[in-house]
Amino acid sequence: MIGREKLHEGKAKIVYSTDDPEVYLQDFKDSATAFDGKKKGTIQQKGRMNNAISARLFTLLEKAGVPTHYLQTVSETGMLIRRLDMFQVEFVVRNIAAGSLCKRIGYLEGTPLKKAPVVEYYYKDDGLGDPLLCQSHLEELAVVDPEDLAETTRLSRLVNSVLKEFFAARGVTLVDFKLEFGKDATGAVRLGDEISPDTCRFWDIATGKKLDKDRFRRDMGDVEDAYEEILRRVSSEPGTVV
Amino acid sequence: MIGREKLHEGKAKIVYSTDDPEVYLQDFKDSATAFDGKKKGTIQQKGRMNNAISARLFTLLEKAGVPTHYLQTVSETGMLIRRLDMFQVEFVVRNIAAGSLCKRIGYLEGTPLKKAPVVEYYYKDDGLGDPLLCQSHLEELAVVDPEDLAETTRLSRLVNSVLKEFFAARGVTLVDFKLEFGKDATGAVRLGDEISPDTCRFWDIATGKKLDKDRFRRDMGDVEDAYEEILRRVSSEPGTVV
Repeated sequence: MIGREKLHEGKAKIVYSTDDPEVYLQDFKDSATAFDGKKKGTIQQKGRMNNAISARLFTLLEKAGVPTHYLQTVSETGMLIRRLDMFQVEFVVRNIAAGSLCKRIGYLEGTPLKKAPVVEYYYKDDGLGDPLLCQSHLEELAVVDPEDLAETTRLSRLVNSVLKEFFAARGVTLVDFKLEFGKDATGAVRLGDEISPDTCRFWDIATGKKLDKDRFRRDMGDVEDAYEEILRRVSSEPGTVV
Repeated sequence: MIGREKLHEGKAKIVYSTDDPEVYLQDFKDSATAFDGKKKGTIQQKGRMNNAISARLFTLLEKAGVPTHYLQTVSETGMLIRRLDMFQVEFVVRNIAAGSLCKRIGYLEGTPLKKAPVVEYYYKDDGLGDPLLCQSHLEELAVVDPEDLAETTRLSRLVNSVLKEFFAARGVTLVDFKLEFGKDATGAVRLGDEISPDTCRFWDIATGKKLDKDRFRRDMGDVEDAYEEILRRVSSEPGTVV
């Protein structure tokens, strides 16, 4: 039943149909892109590591009351997921200033946000360069209706509290992350996509070392090691890695 | 009592103190800038025209229940205004897609907005290039507190209804405009700055001709004539110019 037909190939994942129209196979790739696809490369073993990290975190979040699309891991790089009608929006949740936020509001990287988490909306549109949207734009574009926006905002904050605590107990600061949501066959809002060093900023609490895709974006080296380190931390018991 | 000390010189206006600490003199200049100051020029008589247009529109808005900073016209290019503590935010109100909104959400110029008015917030910070802000950024930066934001949003919508109707009766489509608000000595929110072809997009209803600063931005010629035409329309009775 696995991998009948390729439905969508993105920058980091391929989605295939299965015999069940409500179940897809999501296969993680090693390829990496940054800066709206202007920078391209490969991170060895990334597909395997992001599949394992996402599976662990989706399982954690389900237990904490966040509905996700994750069903089960079926291969080194693949997981079965529920089919969702995705909102054409990326939700970015921030605890500490980094990346584009620093340029936008003039904070130095590493500044803790007074009103954390700051939640931003970006239009998922490669042609337009995934621009920031205000709530007023979301309404105009009708990409999320107000009721679903309230639910995605509530879930984004819940994901943040769960993950922040989980990573802190494993010696990692959760700086910021990107989420994508959609609606399942019953109309319920669920978390989709992935949660990995591709979509989160992770800083080692003890050393400040970046353990995420910023190492690839900024040519910092040790990219594979950083992903492997995050896989090791999420697989460990709290307090055992510091 | 007029023009004791220059307090602030902006791109299009100079503000002077007066003998009354709660009253300033706002003097309109002929100089024009665009694209974050990258383009500079002069629009002959702009100071005189924008002073007259703003006075007319502030008076109209006061009568319609929008508190403004306008007190009285004292010269060809100058008006007395109430001193306000300005919010460090520009409020952009849009009825029809034009300018940066087209690039952001992929609409063609001239597309009527389904959820008009779309209200956007921009951080007044030249060094950062006046970036778009989400509500979450406004809270983080504490540039407008939530109560004042509710009031500025209510007033922005009221300004839009009043001006849209006023201009429609004079053969002009109000496409979009920028407002700036502040708090007066009593703590009340008031409309400040100016309302002119520098800060609004105006299109002639009959011909579609642009009657605003886009003629300067895009080197379309007839810039002075367009400002003069808007002054003529705002000075006219409804229905007398079509």
